[in-house]
Amino acid sequence: MSGGGKIPNGPAAWFAVDWGTSHLRVWAMDGEDQVLTRIHSGKGMAGMAPEAYAPELLALAGPWLPASGSVYAVICGMAGSRQGWIEAPYLEVPVAPSSSGMVRAATGDHRLNAYIVPGLCQTAPADVMRGEETQIAGYLRKNPEFDGYLCLPGTHSKWVSVSGGKVQSFVTVMTGEMFALLGKTSVLRHSVAESGWSEAEFEKGVRQSLDHPERFIASLFAIRAEGLLANLGGEAARALLSGMIIGAELAASRSAWMDRPVVVIGEGALISIYQAALKAAGASAEVFSGDEATLSGLCAAYHFMKGTPS
Amino acid sequence: MSGGGKIPNGPAAWFAVDWGTSHLRVWAMDGEDQVLTRIHSGKGMAGMAPEAYAPELLALAGPWLPASGSVYAVICGMAGSRQGWIEAPYLEVPVAPSSSGMVRAATGDHRLNAYIVPGLCQTAPADVMRGEETQIAGYLRKNPEFDGYLCLPGTHSKWVSVSGGKVQSFVTVMTGEMFALLGKTSVLRHSVAESGWSEAEFEKGVRQSLDHPERFIASLFAIRAEGLLANLGGEAARALLSGMIIGAELAASRSAWMDRPVVVIGEGALISIYQAALKAAGASAEVFSGDEATLSGLCAAYHFMKGTPS
Repeated sequence: MSGGGKIPNGPAAWFAVDWGTSHLRVWAMDGEDQVLTRIHSGKGMAGMAPEAYAPELLALAGPWLPASGSVYAVICGMAGSRQGWIEAPYLEVPVAPSSSGMVRAATGDHRLNAYIVPGLCQTAPADVMRGEETQIAGYLRKNPEFDGYLCLPGTHSKWVSVSGGKVQSFVTVMTGEMFALLGKTSVLRHSVAESGWSEAEFEKGVRQSLDHPERFIASLFAIRAEGLLANLGGEAARALLSGMIIGAELAASRSAWMDRPVVVIGEGALISIYQAALKAAGASAEVFSGDEATLSGLCAAYHFMKGTPS
Repeated sequence: MSGGGKIPNGPAAWFAVDWGTSHLRVWAMDGEDQVLTRIHSGKGMAGMAPEAYAPELLALAGPWLPASGSVYAVICGMAGSRQGWIEAPYLEVPVAPSSSGMVRAATGDHRLNAYIVPGLCQTAPADVMRGEETQIAGYLRKNPEFDGYLCLPGTHSKWVSVSGGKVQSFVTVMTGEMFALLGKTSVLRHSVAESGWSEAEFEKGVRQSLDHPERFIASLFAIRAEGLLANLGGEAARALLSGMIIGAELAASRSAWMDRPVVVIGEGALISIYQAALKAAGASAEVFSGDEATLSGLCAAYHFMKGTPS
């Protein structure tokens, strides 16, 4: 756990909590949606027993709890999964995210009322998200009229069709997980470096998959073969593999970015890579901070619960 | 090591050897291309030092070596790779497989002359094979006029264009490795059983990838979501995943099986699965035993070395 600077004077008005598979982030908030302090912890959902959640949250939030009365903790992420603290059943699309279905999680401390934001699901094709719905709500809080696609890249990238303030449909692409499995575990690991980059090879990979998406699965082994036959470098191979996989993702989502506005929500290098890929595909996209989206979405959920204007 | 029944009376005329990544198979042969005995060992290339190959082969072949004179051991497989016994450089296509480029491997015993059959390579798109070229040669020995595609399914499936007795071109698809990584290591492992099958789900997966190959990478996560939302069973999920991946392989190789004869070379369940996939795609394929192809290919290489008619 790493604290966020000086301890504020007053207690928190509420707590915003992002509880994912591998991380826990708590923001102590004042009454004006301003952050009093940020607390990070490695205590993610993975390997955590249901009864361990409340003590962990109370330990982190404790110094900012009021002496009397009670405050909310609004939680998004995998803590609401079946394997988490308590299951917050998915809301089915089309639906406005973070505006219903919160599930109470007992903290055992009358000062802290914890509620978990539900994820979203889709029946056909079957799909689920948990955590991203809060980022979507956060983006929509700042851009309520948005009509287009939100792309949330990551281990499991989401492409989300939004209009009328609702998530209309979405699709998950296992982009980041595929990149990790192929680059670190498959036979390609012999040719792919653990870091490094080549912009040209990345764009080559993107174009290759966009031009011939049906050959994607039959193109991967060439990375190994080029390493053996043509001394393709490990950094170039890494960028080529990334480009091929993201290009396949873009080919699958072509109807999204071809004819409607696209906003990529995320942080740092990842959104730059997606911007570069979309540019190579002849499209363009705005970007929006993933951290800002998460916090803004938790604020939206908090105000929904309190019945106060967001 | 498991022996193959009774010890024959006479010494071997030569030895056929298939030395792969994880296995070693030795056939003691008579002068009429008949098998005297078969010896299997788990001493594959993986983790084996170059100096360990000769003692291992001599230990297995020893009982069938002649008292005087010398005999050949003709070896195919990963023993000829850079990480193996000694590198047998790839022959570039188009080329007749198992008809040139054998590389001598010193055994340290004058009774045994070991030669390694080289793999094949292709420059653009870059590709390599090592081991399959011998199966192809074995199939061509029995079907010298074949003009079409050979499909050798496996961890790294090969689709091989053959005409005029030569391999003209080929492509590797990481089908089996993708199935193992996605089914056992990725998030899909929570939904995919380790065994079991559903013919209907398999065919559904094949058709899905054939109809929309560009959506392949965006379709995989639905297996997890259907497990969560619709209680898709683990056996059905396993067959669906297999169908989606093999369907993607077939979509990538459509030009192969659409307009020319296809023969699937392999053993058991795997060739049945590929026959079913091709049938679901509206095509048909003959099958040929992979073990018979390997031994026949090693016979072809032996006769090429001896200068005797194959």
